[in-house]
Amino acid sequence: MAKRDNISSSVVRRLPRYYRFLRELDNQGVSHVSSNELAKRMSSTASQVRQDFNCFGEFGQQGIGYSVTQLREEIENILGIKCLYKAILVGAGNIGTAVANQIIAERRCFELVGIFDSDRAKVGSVISGVDVLHTDDLEKFLEENEIVTAVICVPKRAVEEIADRLYAGGVRSFWNFSHYDISMKYDDVIVENVHLSDSLMQLCFRINRKTAL
Amino acid sequence: MAKRDNISSSVVRRLPRYYRFLRELDNQGVSHVSSNELAKRMSSTASQVRQDFNCFGEFGQQGIGYSVTQLREEIENILGIKCLYKAILVGAGNIGTAVANQIIAERRCFELVGIFDSDRAKVGSVISGVDVLHTDDLEKFLEENEIVTAVICVPKRAVEEIADRLYAGGVRSFWNFSHYDISMKYDDVIVENVHLSDSLMQLCFRINRKTAL
Repeated sequence: MAKRDNISSSVVRRLPRYYRFLRELDNQGVSHVSSNELAKRMSSTASQVRQDFNCFGEFGQQGIGYSVTQLREEIENILGIKCLYKAILVGAGNIGTAVANQIIAERRCFELVGIFDSDRAKVGSVISGVDVLHTDDLEKFLEENEIVTAVICVPKRAVEEIADRLYAGGVRSFWNFSHYDISMKYDDVIVENVHLSDSLMQLCFRINRKTAL
Repeated sequence: MAKRDNISSSVVRRLPRYYRFLRELDNQGVSHVSSNELAKRMSSTASQVRQDFNCFGEFGQQGIGYSVTQLREEIENILGIKCLYKAILVGAGNIGTAVANQIIAERRCFELVGIFDSDRAKVGSVISGVDVLHTDDLEKFLEENEIVTAVICVPKRAVEEIADRLYAGGVRSFWNFSHYDISMKYDDVIVENVHLSDSLMQLCFRINRKTAL
């Protein structure tokens, strides 16, 4: 824990995956896990696993392995996922609805307090217990609620205007499912992009390469 | 082009993003782009960009930059995204519907030929021109069609059974939106995982870190 500030970005990228596995083990009542088991699950090596965890304390014991609960809690603390930042979601289409359900189901990181759509037919409906409001009411809502994060699930043609309005309303972090690069216009924002088409192209490349072998 | 076999995996990971930007420029009628412009867009450096492209031919000209069309076509060839592998999707919920629409809209990499769901109320409906069939008909469909890839959008409780049936039916590549790790059971498959909860945790970590500064 003492060395937590030194955790490299590549370790941080692996933490959610470790976390998912540890949570599974914890739920199954498993008390300890070896670096070998963790490595197998991570498609990594035992030495990589030990190196990853070296930087945040002494949880491993020779012959016993890591305490599942302690390791899980430490990763929770590093990622800060016990926080509940207030978030809104814009764009209640299929992807928006799926993402809203996911945020509500996670019950950590973000508290979804409003969903916005420009389609009046959707306004008044409820997704996972959260009201769908009209995008005309965005500014008023941002004024009255301290919103940390916005989830953007609108089509490309609408996204620049929505991003501008959210930024003007004080939002500085975005979970972005659109094809628009928000950080090109605003350099003081945090953007986590989910580009499904990039993932699709990577899969295509890997199939091609295997076919060519 | 001669050196294409040597392209490192880290370059390959960046290619879809280069590709998206080049396609945008190409559509705008821009003929050349400098390594500086590309670097700015990629949050990278001009020297990194030049290094990335060095391995697949001589498209850059001092003072003129890279030919947008040539570079775009070369990346298309490397990624192999002009292929149209036959794919099916299982799980026609919100995320499944959104992903199906995305695959159809992309018009490259994959041709979506069937969508399956266990809910009889959804069977017979059409998503982006593709029929929704019942999962009971999965085996017959796999026998009659040469399916390369399956997109998995089913809930966790259903995913292991579905993955087993797809594997038994000859499918060896998966675009996986579920929380189940297919490659743990089958080591001869290609799996591209989209873990929304990992992305959510990364965003949370970055907000925490900024807040702590």
